[in-house]
Amino acid sequence: MSSKNVLPKTMEYKNGDLYLIDQTRLPNETIIEKQVTIEQVWDSIKVLKVRGAPAIGIAGAYGLLYGVRDILDAPVDKFMQVLKEKAAYLDSSRPTAVNLSWGLKRMVAKAETCTDMTSEEIYKVLEQEAIAIHEEDKILCKKMGENGAPLIKEGMGVLTHCNAGSLATSELGTATAPMYTAHNAGVKFRVYSDETRPLLQGARLTSWELQKSGIDVTLICDNMAAHIMSQGLIDMVIVGTDRVAANGDVANKIGTMGVAILAKHFGIPFYVACPSSTVDLNTPTGADIVIEEREPNEVCNFGARRTAPEGMKVRNPAFDVTPNELVTGIITELGILQAPYIESLASAYKK
Amino acid sequence: MSSKNVLPKTMEYKNGDLYLIDQTRLPNETIIEKQVTIEQVWDSIKVLKVRGAPAIGIAGAYGLLYGVRDILDAPVDKFMQVLKEKAAYLDSSRPTAVNLSWGLKRMVAKAETCTDMTSEEIYKVLEQEAIAIHEEDKILCKKMGENGAPLIKEGMGVLTHCNAGSLATSELGTATAPMYTAHNAGVKFRVYSDETRPLLQGARLTSWELQKSGIDVTLICDNMAAHIMSQGLIDMVIVGTDRVAANGDVANKIGTMGVAILAKHFGIPFYVACPSSTVDLNTPTGADIVIEEREPNEVCNFGARRTAPEGMKVRNPAFDVTPNELVTGIITELGILQAPYIESLASAYKK
Repeated sequence: MSSKNVLPKTMEYKNGDLYLIDQTRLPNETIIEKQVTIEQVWDSIKVLKVRGAPAIGIAGAYGLLYGVRDILDAPVDKFMQVLKEKAAYLDSSRPTAVNLSWGLKRMVAKAETCTDMTSEEIYKVLEQEAIAIHEEDKILCKKMGENGAPLIKEGMGVLTHCNAGSLATSELGTATAPMYTAHNAGVKFRVYSDETRPLLQGARLTSWELQKSGIDVTLICDNMAAHIMSQGLIDMVIVGTDRVAANGDVANKIGTMGVAILAKHFGIPFYVACPSSTVDLNTPTGADIVIEEREPNEVCNFGARRTAPEGMKVRNPAFDVTPNELVTGIITELGILQAPYIESLASAYKK
Repeated sequence: MSSKNVLPKTMEYKNGDLYLIDQTRLPNETIIEKQVTIEQVWDSIKVLKVRGAPAIGIAGAYGLLYGVRDILDAPVDKFMQVLKEKAAYLDSSRPTAVNLSWGLKRMVAKAETCTDMTSEEIYKVLEQEAIAIHEEDKILCKKMGENGAPLIKEGMGVLTHCNAGSLATSELGTATAPMYTAHNAGVKFRVYSDETRPLLQGARLTSWELQKSGIDVTLICDNMAAHIMSQGLIDMVIVGTDRVAANGDVANKIGTMGVAILAKHFGIPFYVACPSSTVDLNTPTGADIVIEEREPNEVCNFGARRTAPEGMKVRNPAFDVTPNELVTGIITELGILQAPYIESLASAYKK
């Protein structure tokens, strides 16, 4: 029998307030922080207390409510003006995050459809819209879980990289959704979590959430994956993605391509999980994706401690692009898409 | 023009005393520590102030001198008895290190050949033997350097993993010997140093010594190697090894096999550098090599800071075995050995 899922919610809206797990304190402390002001929500997104593209889209939508909840008596034109100002303000917390911007735009657009309503009535519509954004994400995760779970058989070993988990979304995660779904159905399997240097999302977050859920999870350093695979301990890989190009090339956390090459070498299926909205048909191939190069300090320091010589040259690409020929399938809410991706992705998008 | 090699010596014997770089303080501080007692040498080996198989063999031989240098007036039988006790004591500092045991045995055996000598005369022979062990290692490194350097052409990118460098040997290192030799000959090339989790020997030691030597070195996280290779930045890989089986399977620091698989995927030559004494003809294949599993804390903590949940299951294999078919060549003092290794290694050993 599988253990009961006791994972704390990444984010919860109750009695008109948003509650977040402070992910910067994980895994050492599980602090659920009530959000009180829009400035606090801005800061929570900025300092990565809440992170993961779907999760910050939802947090932004709820956060916008804080920006107008004290002016429900104001005339509608004033209310709308403040709403737009506050949306721009919240958007500035992580300007490159597409989902945050998307969530805020959707909220403002919803308010603009509210004709012949008071500010208070518009607020109630907006609150329902934020809840809808949240609920829709839960449904996407649930469907990815249902579509991917049959891949995970009793006794299998599953490797994942970085955190494409519950903590990055509303509930079941993307890469983790098939795992949670299989686990909750009583399937017993083992997960290996790459620690994911330099920021250790695998060690700090994925290990934490899978352990909390009662899933049999083992932490390894990124460079141990080949050895673990060579021992026959891995039967499949599931990772998330930040963007899928029209040809099926997959941008994801640095190290993902290495895992895909190892999986091919050992004949292990390599799956990517994402909502179909992550497919960007305007990006023809992975070569069109710009790879963000981050601060050298992330590689040269650990906390306050320096771990490389002063003046060291460092490369710190945040992502890599896994070529489509290494991808066995893409698990989406619409089903598992397979090669040739140029056709399967285009056709999925039409739906 | 290449920069001048200004690398501090890993270990130096002068005026009857041994001086070591304290490698536990690198890269933040370069402390040259004079050894004063045999107990201090024992501790220096134990806590990894000096590490790397060849280096601790040499340090052990010098260290043994400290155990008997205050009893030069003693009768020979007493001198020999103390010598053997002190050798056993020093050997206990790292019982699994073959080179340490080998160096100490060689010193005791040398003393046993000294008939009709006073204790003081035997001591002088032993001092010369320790110096000979040290000098022989320098010559091995030099020959590996000469044999491997022609592989490194102007403008190339070379990837290495862990520290098989000067700091692990007397002088030029094993994997780094071809790099230093090419560099000193004025060849300009780039080195990428894998940081090498969990203990970061690549970040702390290899980066440090190559930087000090004026070689163009860039530090990367282990999981970035695939991306860097995919960008066409790597033309060859050179790593060290702890043991080569009779069939050419190569045991080395965890992560080496992953690098070898990536190199094969991208069509990049993968070389191993070691003295021929590292080949163990009594080990038929890599499957006969027991992989040491180390403390989970090395993966779950960083310094005093915990980076994974309490109670986390962890795998921490210290080594992996790269199958011979992924090895382009083995750079030794005798030349570059190539497949079929079962023949080339056996024949090299005969010499």
